[in-house]
Amino acid sequence: MTAIRMLVCVPKLWNETIEEHRRAVRDAVLGTTAALVGELGLRAVTMSRIAEESGIGRATLYKYFPDVESILTAWHEEQIAGHLRELGALRDGSGDPGERLAAVLEAYAFIQQRRHGHGAELGALLHRGEHVAGAERHLHHFLRELLAEGARAGDIRDDVSPDELAGYCLHALAAAGALPSKAAVRRLVAVTRAGLRPEG
Amino acid sequence: MTAIRMLVCVPKLWNETIEEHRRAVRDAVLGTTAALVGELGLRAVTMSRIAEESGIGRATLYKYFPDVESILTAWHEEQIAGHLRELGALRDGSGDPGERLAAVLEAYAFIQQRRHGHGAELGALLHRGEHVAGAERHLHHFLRELLAEGARAGDIRDDVSPDELAGYCLHALAAAGALPSKAAVRRLVAVTRAGLRPEG
Repeated sequence: MTAIRMLVCVPKLWNETIEEHRRAVRDAVLGTTAALVGELGLRAVTMSRIAEESGIGRATLYKYFPDVESILTAWHEEQIAGHLRELGALRDGSGDPGERLAAVLEAYAFIQQRRHGHGAELGALLHRGEHVAGAERHLHHFLRELLAEGARAGDIRDDVSPDELAGYCLHALAAAGALPSKAAVRRLVAVTRAGLRPEG
Repeated sequence: MTAIRMLVCVPKLWNETIEEHRRAVRDAVLGTTAALVGELGLRAVTMSRIAEESGIGRATLYKYFPDVESILTAWHEEQIAGHLRELGALRDGSGDPGERLAAVLEAYAFIQQRRHGHGAELGALLHRGEHVAGAERHLHHFLRELLAEGARAGDIRDDVSPDELAGYCLHALAAAGALPSKAAVRRLVAVTRAGLRPEG
């Protein structure tokens, strides 16, 4: 909070600094809101409470976000962008296509498991947004390319299109949301990968 | 509609006939509402419209259901009960455990594909109901028993519990909702079943 208040004193003509300041306020608001929702539940979190806990004025908060839902959507967008970066790094990592695909599938399954921790209420609120549909399309495309690469290398079955296999993977791995342990998630990934293997 | 109006004239002391009449009115209301939502979309369907199209008075309709949502929920409950009966008949049919499991998985995938036809708005409304959670638990239990039977027969892998495999199947087959053809659904079922096979 101290960092934010210090930044307010920086001359406003320095555009870069203003940009930095806005980003710091935004990050503080997003982080605080996510923490409050996790702690108190969605219904208990108000704009006043967020302003107070972030250490900014209520009027300032309203200059950034019109309501709690918009803050949560922004937070969720950043979470999703982070996940896509994480999966992208694994795809572009070392190893043959099969190993990189396995790493991506496992990381995606763990994301699904963590995501479930948000709770049903927050999940229902966040997952109807257009940004989620966009991220899902992106992820589907991303997996399709990896699967096509795997099929060319002979690691992945080629009697079913990479597009359909991507849909299968994303749905099957969503089962991780209900799993209680990392070991169970790894078993789910193994079962899902067994479905991808060339026949015979 | 004629059938319903005739039944109204039957002496009220005949309890069985009253029950039959109530069922006929209820079925007419559910069928009419589902057809109207399919045709006009959820927002365009009102209680007045449903009463009119079902051929009953508005006051009578309100004796049966308080609002459009409750009619849709009742309709959905009957759909789900029908699906569970269909899957139960396949499970109890002829053939070895592997064949019966395959028949159940394929039928479930086709149900998922048809279900998607309801549209996203109706899906979101119906799928937050408690009756859906109950049906999902029932289905999970149902599949788990079939998978356990298959594992004992050596058709299904036994390095992962039937419970986890049931979750995998239900999630993987939900991908059928986005598939355009019966052939694509059958490919999805084949891929999903490949994940269930014993290793090695």
